[in-house]
Amino acid sequence: MSDSLLNELKNRLHEVADLAQAGSVLNWDMATYMPPKGAPQRGRALATLSKLHHEKFTDPAVGHLLDQLEAQLGDRPDDDDDAALVRVTLREYNRAVKVPASLVGEISELTSTLYDAWTRARPANDFASLMPMLEREIDLYRQMANCFPGYRHISDPLIDFSDYGMSAESIRSIFSELRAELVPIVKAIIEQGSADDSPLHQIYPETDQEAFGVEIIKAYGYDFERGRQDRTHHPFMTRFSGNDVRITTRFRENALDDGLFSTLHEAGHALYEQGIDPKFDGTPLGGGTSTGVHESQSRLWENIVGRSHGFWSQYYPQLQVMFPEQLNTVSLEEFYRAINVAKPSLIRVDADEVTYNLHVMIRFDLELGLMEGSLEVKDLPEIWHSRYASDLGVTAPDDRDGVLQDVHWYTGIFGYFQGYTLGNLMSAQFYDAALRAHPAIPAEIAEGKFDTLRSWLTENIYRHGSKFTTDELLRRATGEGLGIQAWINYIRGKYGEMYKL
Amino acid sequence: MSDSLLNELKNRLHEVADLAQAGSVLNWDMATYMPPKGAPQRGRALATLSKLHHEKFTDPAVGHLLDQLEAQLGDRPDDDDDAALVRVTLREYNRAVKVPASLVGEISELTSTLYDAWTRARPANDFASLMPMLEREIDLYRQMANCFPGYRHISDPLIDFSDYGMSAESIRSIFSELRAELVPIVKAIIEQGSADDSPLHQIYPETDQEAFGVEIIKAYGYDFERGRQDRTHHPFMTRFSGNDVRITTRFRENALDDGLFSTLHEAGHALYEQGIDPKFDGTPLGGGTSTGVHESQSRLWENIVGRSHGFWSQYYPQLQVMFPEQLNTVSLEEFYRAINVAKPSLIRVDADEVTYNLHVMIRFDLELGLMEGSLEVKDLPEIWHSRYASDLGVTAPDDRDGVLQDVHWYTGIFGYFQGYTLGNLMSAQFYDAALRAHPAIPAEIAEGKFDTLRSWLTENIYRHGSKFTTDELLRRATGEGLGIQAWINYIRGKYGEMYKL
Repeated sequence: MSDSLLNELKNRLHEVADLAQAGSVLNWDMATYMPPKGAPQRGRALATLSKLHHEKFTDPAVGHLLDQLEAQLGDRPDDDDDAALVRVTLREYNRAVKVPASLVGEISELTSTLYDAWTRARPANDFASLMPMLEREIDLYRQMANCFPGYRHISDPLIDFSDYGMSAESIRSIFSELRAELVPIVKAIIEQGSADDSPLHQIYPETDQEAFGVEIIKAYGYDFERGRQDRTHHPFMTRFSGNDVRITTRFRENALDDGLFSTLHEAGHALYEQGIDPKFDGTPLGGGTSTGVHESQSRLWENIVGRSHGFWSQYYPQLQVMFPEQLNTVSLEEFYRAINVAKPSLIRVDADEVTYNLHVMIRFDLELGLMEGSLEVKDLPEIWHSRYASDLGVTAPDDRDGVLQDVHWYTGIFGYFQGYTLGNLMSAQFYDAALRAHPAIPAEIAEGKFDTLRSWLTENIYRHGSKFTTDELLRRATGEGLGIQAWINYIRGKYGEMYKL
Repeated sequence: MSDSLLNELKNRLHEVADLAQAGSVLNWDMATYMPPKGAPQRGRALATLSKLHHEKFTDPAVGHLLDQLEAQLGDRPDDDDDAALVRVTLREYNRAVKVPASLVGEISELTSTLYDAWTRARPANDFASLMPMLEREIDLYRQMANCFPGYRHISDPLIDFSDYGMSAESIRSIFSELRAELVPIVKAIIEQGSADDSPLHQIYPETDQEAFGVEIIKAYGYDFERGRQDRTHHPFMTRFSGNDVRITTRFRENALDDGLFSTLHEAGHALYEQGIDPKFDGTPLGGGTSTGVHESQSRLWENIVGRSHGFWSQYYPQLQVMFPEQLNTVSLEEFYRAINVAKPSLIRVDADEVTYNLHVMIRFDLELGLMEGSLEVKDLPEIWHSRYASDLGVTAPDDRDGVLQDVHWYTGIFGYFQGYTLGNLMSAQFYDAALRAHPAIPAEIAEGKFDTLRSWLTENIYRHGSKFTTDELLRRATGEGLGIQAWINYIRGKYGEMYKL
C-alpha cells in the first residue's frame, strides 16, 4: 500500500520539479541571453511559475500523503531512501505551507525586477536607484521569517532554509572561534608583504581563458553531455535536472585568475549536482543538501585542488604553452605565489583563501542588521565601507566594488552568506577524510588525475543528494561534526610554506 | 461591470500567457543550447507546462466570464478591442475545452522526445527509428481531430487551428487553381535552363554571413533590444512576449543564400510579432492571426523585398566589400540571377520562389493522406520520393533530404503546411496594397530604406495581432479576399524579365 502512496507522492513531486525546472530555465535565460527589454514580462512569468510551484507543493493532498507515509514508514531505518524522501519532503512541506502563495509570488516578481535593475545600477554606481526595492524586499523577507514564529533571531528561519540546523547564534559562535584564529594569521601575512600577482594581470584573450578552463573542468569530470557553460554578470550553477546541470562564468581580459577560478568554483557545484543518484531526480532529494555543503564542493575544487602546488605542477606548463608571451618568463613558483597572494581586498569573489572569510562575516553581520532593523538600507553603503576599513583595512572608491558587488540581495538570496564560510570549513574536513581513505590523492592531482577524489566525494557526499542533513553527512563522511580545525590546519600548512606564521 | 469582468478575464489570460512563455523558453532552449542528455526531463517539464496551460485556460470560470462578457459586449462594434478579445478568446476556449488535458500532455511529451530523436535521426538518415513515434503522433492528432465531430475532412480541425476559416476542400481548390497557372511557368523556365548559382557556393565564413544578415534585419527594423538571434537545426521565430521575440538561424559555409534568406525569413515573422500593439500582450490577441498571414510576412521580407533587384542594388556593393575574393568578379546582374535561380530542387527551405509552392503541395497532400489513413507511415519515404519525381522531376539520394528534411511532423506541427503557400499568395496581395498607398516604396528599398513599407504593414496588419481573422485583415488591408492573381502577376513580372514566359 505504501508503494502506491509513494508513487502518487512522486508523481506530484515530479510535477513540482517540472515547474521548478521551468523557473530555473527562465532565470538562467534572464542571466545569460534575454534581450534587455524582456525583463518585465519575464518577471511576471517567473512570479506565476513560483506561485503555481507553491500551490502544487502545498496542496493539502501532498500533506495527507506525507502524513500517511510517515506513519507507515516509521519503522524503516533512517537511511532508507523512501523514509528519507518522506522525512525531507515533510520538512520542506511544513516550511512551504507556512508561507502564503501571494508572498512567494510578490518576492519572485520584485526580485526579478530588482535583479534587472542591479545589472544596470552596478555599472552606473547607482545604489540609490535600488534602495526602495531593496527596502521592500527586506520587508517581504521579514514577513517570510514571521511565518515561523518562535525564532530567536529574525534571520533564523531564512538561515534554516539554506543551512538546515544552523542559526544566527550557532553561526556567530563558530565565526567568532574562526575569527580568533584567523585574524592573527592575516596580520602576520600582511606584515610580511604580499607576493607579486602582476603576472595574472597581463592581457589574456577571453576565448583562450575559456578553452583552458573547459579543459580543466572536463578533467575534473564535469560532463558536458549533461551541462554547458555560458557567460553572465555574476557566475552561478543551476540544475534543471540531473541531466542538465549548467554553469556560468565571466572573464576579464586583464585578470586571468578571475575567470579561471570562477569556472573551477562553479564546476565544483556542478560536480555535486551531476553526481547525485538519478533515482532522486524530480524529488526534494535530488539536489545538494545545504548551501554549506554545496560551497564545500565549489571551494574544494576551486581552492584545495585548483590552487594547490601539485595541480599547477601538472597544468602550468600547459598554461605556458597557451600564453607563451605572458608566462614564459614566469616560473611555476612565481605563478603559484601569484594565484595564492593573500592580501586584504575589496571583492569577495576575487579574495584569497585567507581573507575570504572576513568578507563573508561582514555580509553576514550586515544582513542580520538589515533583517533585525538595526541597520537601515540607506546607511548600508557607508557601513559597508566602514566595516571594510576596520576588518580589512581597505576602502572601495565607490559602491560598484562596495555594496553593489554581490548579486545575492538583488536577486532574492537571503540567509545565505554564512554558507560560504561553512563551506570553506567543511571543504577541509571532507578533503582530510578523502586523504585518510586514499593517501595517493595529492600525487594523482599532480598528474592531472581526479577520479579517486571525485569518486570518494561522489560515494560519500554527492550521490546522497539531500538524503542526509549537513551534520549527518559530515559525521558519516568524516566521523566528526562541523569544526574550524581542519581548515585552520590547511591554511597554516599551505601559507606556512610561503610566510612565517 | 464589464470592466471588472474584463480585468478578471485578463488576469487569468495573463497567467495562461505566462505558462505559454515558460513553455516557449523551454522549447527555444531545447532547440538552441540544451545539452544532449537533457531531453527526457525537458520533455516531462514541457508536458507539465502544457497540461497546466490547458487546465488554466479551460477553467470553467474562464468560460463563465466569457459568456457573461459576450452578452454584455454584444452591441459593441466588431472592431472594438474588448469585443474582439472576448470573441477570439471564446473561439480558442471552445476549441480548448474539447481536447482533454491528458491528450494535450501526451502530445507534448511525445513530440519533445520525437524532436530530440529527429535531431539525431536526420543526420543518420534513419527514418525507421522515428516510425513508431510518428505513427503514435498521427494517432494522437486523429484523436484531437475527433474531438471536433462534424468535420468534412479529418484534417479540417487542425487546419482551422492554423488558418481559421480554411479547410482541406477550400485549400485543395485554391491549390488546384494555382497549380494550373504555375506548372506551365515552371515548365517554361526549366526548358530555358537555369542561371548559374555557383557564386553562392564558394566558401563564406559563417561569422561574416551572420554579421551581414544582422545588418540587414536591423535596417528592416528588427529590434535587438526586444529580441536576439541564435543558431539552431531548423530556423524558427518564437515570441515570449512583445518585448522578447527571438529568431534562430543556421549557416552553411558553402551556401550563402541558405543562412541569409533564412535570417530574412525569420525576421519577417519577428517584425510581425514585434509590431503588435503592446496592449494585447499576454492575451490571445497578442500574436499573429494565422499561419498564412505570418508566412505572408516572412515571405514578403525574404523574397519580395530581400530577393528584389532594387534591394541588391543597395546591398550588393556592401556584400562585395565583405566578401571581395568571392564576389569581386561577380556582377550585380549575375548575383541577382543566382539568388533567383528557378529550378526543381529537393529542399523546401532552399527552393526558389517559383517552385516552392510545389514542395508545399506535396507535404499538404501527404499529410492529408496520413491523417485520413490512406497513406501509412512506413510508405511515407517512398511516396515522398515518387511525388518529388513526378511533381518536380528530382529524387533525393536518401531520406535526409526527403521525408526527414522538415522539422514539422517531428515536433508536433500538423495542419500547418498550407500556410506557406497561402502566405506566398497573400504576401503579393499585401505588397500590392502597400504600393498602391505608397508608390515610392520600391525606390526606398533601393536606398536601403524600409520604414514606409514596415509602417504600412504595422498599421494595416501587425498592430492588430489576432484581432481580425485572415479574411477580415486581407479585406481591410487590400480590399479583396484571398486570391492567386497578385502572386502570379508578381512571379510573371519578376521572372518574365529573366525568362520568356
